Amino acid sequence: MKRKLITSLILALILVFTAIPVAALSDSITVEDPVKNVIVLIPDGMPIDAVTLARWMQDGEPLAMDEIASGMMRTYSADAPVADSAPAATAMATGFKSHTGFVGVLADENTMPGQEPLAEKDVRRPVATVLEAARLMGKSTGLISTSEIMHATPAAFSAHVPDRKNYDWISEQQVHQGIDVILGSGRNFFSADHREDSKDMIAVIEENYKYVTTPADMAKVTEGKVFGLFGDTALAYDMDRDPELEPSISEMTEKAIELLSQNEKGFFLMVEGSKVDWAAHANDPIGLISDVLAFDAAVKVALDFAKEEGNTLVIAATDHANSGITIGSKDTSYDYDKRTLNEFLDALKKATLTGEGLALHFDEERSNIEEVVADYFGIEDLTEEEIELIKETDLTAMNYAVGPMIAGRALIGFTTNGHTGGDVTLYCYAPENLTRLTGVIDNTDMAKYVELAMGANLAEVTDRLFVRAAEALEEKGGSAEFDEAEGAIVLKNGDKEVTIKVNTNLAVVGDETIELPGVAVYSGDQIYVSQEALDLLD
Amino acid sequence: MKRKLITSLILALILVFTAIPVAALSDSITVEDPVKNVIVLIPDGMPIDAVTLARWMQDGEPLAMDEIASGMMRTYSADAPVADSAPAATAMATGFKSHTGFVGVLADENTMPGQEPLAEKDVRRPVATVLEAARLMGKSTGLISTSEIMHATPAAFSAHVPDRKNYDWISEQQVHQGIDVILGSGRNFFSADHREDSKDMIAVIEENYKYVTTPADMAKVTEGKVFGLFGDTALAYDMDRDPELEPSISEMTEKAIELLSQNEKGFFLMVEGSKVDWAAHANDPIGLISDVLAFDAAVKVALDFAKEEGNTLVIAATDHANSGITIGSKDTSYDYDKRTLNEFLDALKKATLTGEGLALHFDEERSNIEEVVADYFGIEDLTEEEIELIKETDLTAMNYAVGPMIAGRALIGFTTNGHTGGDVTLYCYAPENLTRLTGVIDNTDMAKYVELAMGANLAEVTDRLFVRAAEALEEKGGSAEFDEAEGAIVLKNGDKEVTIKVNTNLAVVGDETIELPGVAVYSGDQIYVSQEALDLLD
Repeated sequence: MKRKLITSLILALILVFTAIPVAALSDSITVEDPVKNVIVLIPDGMPIDAVTLARWMQDGEPLAMDEIASGMMRTYSADAPVADSAPAATAMATGFKSHTGFVGVLADENTMPGQEPLAEKDVRRPVATVLEAARLMGKSTGLISTSEIMHATPAAFSAHVPDRKNYDWISEQQVHQGIDVILGSGRNFFSADHREDSKDMIAVIEENYKYVTTPADMAKVTEGKVFGLFGDTALAYDMDRDPELEPSISEMTEKAIELLSQNEKGFFLMVEGSKVDWAAHANDPIGLISDVLAFDAAVKVALDFAKEEGNTLVIAATDHANSGITIGSKDTSYDYDKRTLNEFLDALKKATLTGEGLALHFDEERSNIEEVVADYFGIEDLTEEEIELIKETDLTAMNYAVGPMIAGRALIGFTTNGHTGGDVTLYCYAPENLTRLTGVIDNTDMAKYVELAMGANLAEVTDRLFVRAAEALEEKGGSAEFDEAEGAIVLKNGDKEVTIKVNTNLAVVGDETIELPGVAVYSGDQIYVSQEALDLLD
Repeated sequence: MKRKLITSLILALILVFTAIPVAALSDSITVEDPVKNVIVLIPDGMPIDAVTLARWMQDGEPLAMDEIASGMMRTYSADAPVADSAPAATAMATGFKSHTGFVGVLADENTMPGQEPLAEKDVRRPVATVLEAARLMGKSTGLISTSEIMHATPAAFSAHVPDRKNYDWISEQQVHQGIDVILGSGRNFFSADHREDSKDMIAVIEENYKYVTTPADMAKVTEGKVFGLFGDTALAYDMDRDPELEPSISEMTEKAIELLSQNEKGFFLMVEGSKVDWAAHANDPIGLISDVLAFDAAVKVALDFAKEEGNTLVIAATDHANSGITIGSKDTSYDYDKRTLNEFLDALKKATLTGEGLALHFDEERSNIEEVVADYFGIEDLTEEEIELIKETDLTAMNYAVGPMIAGRALIGFTTNGHTGGDVTLYCYAPENLTRLTGVIDNTDMAKYVELAMGANLAEVTDRLFVRAAEALEEKGGSAEFDEAEGAIVLKNGDKEVTIKVNTNLAVVGDETIELPGVAVYSGDQIYVSQEALDLLD
């Protein structure tokens, strides 16, 4: 009787965790042999016309990603047709749609059409990411971003928190995820004096990693685990970047591959071109071009490796479109086909910095706006209103002011400062032993495809890493409690007790500290720990 | 010496006609056996977010075209990054980029990056279309549009005129192209009383085709050649369509396939969803949704046939993007992810007609605007300005007035009333014997791929159908002249004389009329006739 119940439960679980798309995918995808390495590249918020525009900026020469375009991807979240980056990346990382702000956990409710309803007990439930699955298979893992590394997209691959703004929890999980290579930015958010919890996470990093903060130091690392943080918050747009202070996204990708590929069992790497999205929000074509081209150079590094290595999957897609940028605007409504390429490009080609870089050149009174804009943007006909706007704009938001000024002169249109709901381009390079992903896929299919390609089982990993602790222990007469003051999960059964600092993989039993296979998570309601944590109580 | 010169000439010709992309394509595409049938579907001016929106209008259920999305396509013309439909369709039909307004002929100049310069003698030179190549292979051919059939896109597959507005010449060539099935609209432009040349082309059609003007009569045709014209100008948007008076695009596609597939040698069919583009120009989301869904139903018909038949290529792409439509607008810049699906769809779902259909319901004084808009659009809060705009708008342009009113209420943004320059989605279904087209292709690659797939040779067809007559005859001491008053091409050599009515395939030698393999073309400067026409002088 009991066995039967368990079987039904397992069956129910399998049903929940294998929604329709998985079946559809495994029907159409053949994996002769699991692939060894997977590289996922995400140009955050990359709209299609920005790609076309970036290509024209290199005289129409194909981008590296062009050759692997293979279809389109839908980007909606569990409850909205236009997704926030957190649920969008969660879908690509875990195979499950989620809600605004949620990383690595399920939604509160699935309201979009065609979805299974979300069971009450699955609300905000952590779900395994492809990175975690890869790590448990013995592969090396890596995470790269050009924003702070705890930003939504890298967070969704490496943390389980229903609040993307909770940098303390996300970053603590990232440090304890056993990731081999982390390269990006956001030093402040690891530093005791900038964190709400005042923890010195840099010290924890230094215990476990070679910690580097300059491209030169990064270059020197040739083996082992590395944690590179090259800026206090986000890195600069590639165009504004000082190569002495910050590596490019392609340099980080190259280094990560060099280190990760030393593992015979292969690796999983996620690379985010973070600030494509930021430039889109700002309606700034220069930032877009800068960081689309920089991202494309990282795709080239990944593709070159994959082609040479022979058993590497490279897959890329933006998490959502943004800004509605078009080559063409209200000013070209009736003469678009008469406009030469130079009418679009001339204004763009004159810019040598984005607004962020420009902002560093204004004097304190901003008395030299016209001179600076002429020098670095090539705009010599600023209107009084434009000068006033630049004067009034916060230095950190300068792309919002000057981006549209260039866009107008370059006949480029935008519909919004926000994300948009259209399908985005899917890019896929599959080795010979794997069917290439194509058609119009769902964003959750990306995770499911990576899962299939690696021969992983995300549902099993979720079941192993995220057991509802209270439920499991109470069945046996034990208990699981969250001590908020200590930030500790306390598991008890009979006379045994295990304490796990929330957001870490470290279990303390008596004097002993034991490394668990994944981080312990508190959802605000439920405690989730790995099966191995519970086993310590047996 | 002379032989050497000829060899060099042939080599030069080959170089001109096999630009780099052909080589790249034939490297990556394997054709085990030529495909029997080819169906090209072109949703004119279809922007990506309109596809996503149309999908949401059917509750997110996949569109027929979703499954065959395979990459992206570049759309620029010979001299502009944002293409007019005429050169865009010419690229897809012939493999050559061209200039605004030019159908089936080369440009005046190739100024966009990466192109071979255009030789002086190739200016406005007619080039063979994949339809012509298919016909010369003994395949049946068909042409479908929902606009007048002489509109730019169908014209580019079936005529050679450096002026898309020259409906007289385009339509006359279409009638004499030996096309088996033509289904579309534009009766006026075949009628003596509406044509500048006052020719009764309907009479010519009736000599060569079953001529039908209603869906019921179309349904009765079960074999042979058919010419169906179901409206005086363009057909209605699918949503406004009276099914007694006009067939849907999918019904036309189904009938065309039924008739064309009776040829053992196979067929070539081009299907255009013409008014997707018109709705985009008008910034009208209802027209877009109406005709994207209608187009998708035609894709389904084509795909169902192809899957069943087994040796049919289905390929689709819009010729260019248009309007910059996005799901999301300035009104959602900062809360896009909080907006539910219904906030976008409710306003759209209330509409039961497009502006064109709405216009038929206004009384003569337009005193019932509020009532009609409430009845058919579900908008009950028209502002005074909106009522005034509707009152002032030409009835034929009503989509330009009311489309944006719905768009605003549906949180949909647009950047322009014109075409835009971004890449568009490529759709390809290839039978097993053919590599599927994927990656980011050029629009000219579509023609080159169809050419490869059919085992055709477009350069040879061009050389056969479009010989520069004066040059060829003067070499032999003969002459070629265009008699403008008669609209006749007069070829002479020694005592032999051949007269061909320009834009027809009919050569008169003495009392005899001989059918040529293609139409004779006058470019305004040069006379182009088929090799067979010249052979009549030997």
